[in-house]
Amino acid sequence: MAAGSEFDLIREFFTTPGGKGVALGVGDDCALLEIPAGMELAVSMDTLLEGVHFPDDTAAADVGVKALAVGLSDLAAMGAEPAWATLALTLPGIDDSWLRGFSEGFFSLARQYGVTLVGGDTTRGPLMTITLQVHGLVPKGQALRRDGARCGDLIYVTGSLGDAALALQILRGEISAGQPHATWLRRQLDRPVPRVMQGIALRRLASAAIDISDGLLADLRHLLRASSVGARLELDFVPLSEHYLACTGALDDRYRPALSGGDDYELCFTVPAQKKGELEQLFAQRNWPLSAIGSIEQVPGLRCFYPDGRHYHCDSEGFDHFASP
Amino acid sequence: MAAGSEFDLIREFFTTPGGKGVALGVGDDCALLEIPAGMELAVSMDTLLEGVHFPDDTAAADVGVKALAVGLSDLAAMGAEPAWATLALTLPGIDDSWLRGFSEGFFSLARQYGVTLVGGDTTRGPLMTITLQVHGLVPKGQALRRDGARCGDLIYVTGSLGDAALALQILRGEISAGQPHATWLRRQLDRPVPRVMQGIALRRLASAAIDISDGLLADLRHLLRASSVGARLELDFVPLSEHYLACTGALDDRYRPALSGGDDYELCFTVPAQKKGELEQLFAQRNWPLSAIGSIEQVPGLRCFYPDGRHYHCDSEGFDHFASP
Repeated sequence: MAAGSEFDLIREFFTTPGGKGVALGVGDDCALLEIPAGMELAVSMDTLLEGVHFPDDTAAADVGVKALAVGLSDLAAMGAEPAWATLALTLPGIDDSWLRGFSEGFFSLARQYGVTLVGGDTTRGPLMTITLQVHGLVPKGQALRRDGARCGDLIYVTGSLGDAALALQILRGEISAGQPHATWLRRQLDRPVPRVMQGIALRRLASAAIDISDGLLADLRHLLRASSVGARLELDFVPLSEHYLACTGALDDRYRPALSGGDDYELCFTVPAQKKGELEQLFAQRNWPLSAIGSIEQVPGLRCFYPDGRHYHCDSEGFDHFASP
Repeated sequence: MAAGSEFDLIREFFTTPGGKGVALGVGDDCALLEIPAGMELAVSMDTLLEGVHFPDDTAAADVGVKALAVGLSDLAAMGAEPAWATLALTLPGIDDSWLRGFSEGFFSLARQYGVTLVGGDTTRGPLMTITLQVHGLVPKGQALRRDGARCGDLIYVTGSLGDAALALQILRGEISAGQPHATWLRRQLDRPVPRVMQGIALRRLASAAIDISDGLLADLRHLLRASSVGARLELDFVPLSEHYLACTGALDDRYRPALSGGDDYELCFTVPAQKKGELEQLFAQRNWPLSAIGSIEQVPGLRCFYPDGRHYHCDSEGFDHFASP
């Protein structure tokens, strides 16, 4: 805008009508939120940096979608119902059309899940940086946690894995891909679908859950450590999309992007064996993609096996911002 | 640390034992918080950028204090009692001693106000960027808001104004200051004291409140607009510290840093005239500095007057990240 100011900016793109449970929204020193009796508040904060968490050429609307989707995926992993968000935007300058696109993408997903934007901050800095906090509600004591997996539980994942990681490899020119595969994979990178409904349904079925943001192996290891157990993984059961398969045929290690790529935002969770039937029926009824990929074992550590029984060497730890090179 | 990783970093500097109302803290996809019955949750998010919101040479411990103090000041302005914080840190790299200092500063203030760090994110980026969200509790319907000022109410501020703004001017070489003034002023810039106890005490006394982060005039104008009223301000009553006075004697406009400087983190609030006695007695009993600086009027706008009755031209709008130059 011509005489753009911080206050105009907030008003133009980020003012929303009050939502459910919002006693006071954007525009005071704090927002005031009402938490219904019997509910716990689940909160999660994530930062996305341009060029690190999304490619520089990502459409503004996709950045808006992704920023919120990443947070909603954390709520999903706890079985929490999304309620509110706060947004800190650091921008190199004011770009009206970018802000409009970001805002449209963000609010399209927010409306879908009933999320109200209740506050935040806008600042000017050299690199686009987006920190978003999501706030969700879950009945007391019913949240899915990482530490509940028990020996004998089955390990499941939603959706397919490695698609976003492949999109990044294509973007970097590390592998080539024809159409429509490249386009489909890129959409998985730009517009992850948080498994919110699945997370809520899993409250009474799963013993532990985590969302896959750093790669299946890395995130499953977090769950195993928190639960003080180990696991056996069957590589053949790891869900791979047809587009993934079309691009990885020639790779030496075709499993790698699906196991260690990250940015999947699928749920990985464990379920006691006696609830297997109920779980699989529920997901089938709702057409929610689901794969059983292994089982929890007593011995700590993660062991991966090829279909022929050979051991797969899996020591990658997933994405780490500060790991030594 | 030698083989520093994101997870090690979180563990080493930011893991805290569970606090009051924390069902689950750092280390899962979300933190789980318990809000007591009858309370509303007040949340506020602020971003601090190195070189913008604090000078590059600010000690790490002071950055840790300031990041939290800024948020606590927002809670104070609503009359909310601090409870939890989440912290997104973007850092150019790992600097053990900086992180230790930041963590010490942050937790020293957190302990003082019973704040538990329950989550956050750490990322690597070119400029140190700190986004902090504070979460506080306030009895339902008792929060101080900006929109409750009424004609005839008195306008008060806590503490003294303009000290941080002067420290910045000294740092930039715009004015000179001897010791111990320069040191004292710099401390006000680096370690603002959030008026948390004052805010809580004001719940039953103030009709409206705001914290002064962008300058008295700019923030008072927010309050006036939200309340659909105007105000008359007596410049002679604006509280100036002895150190401020020692440095501004030669300035053409000695009021300017106190009126438009920002970074004060004092409270500005309005009180119905019939509660004047009770308010002033309470603040005197507790040795809390307090100044009555004006009164609310029907006619919109803000009018400032010199002691001799002349009108002071005050059109500055305070600090704005995106204002046209």
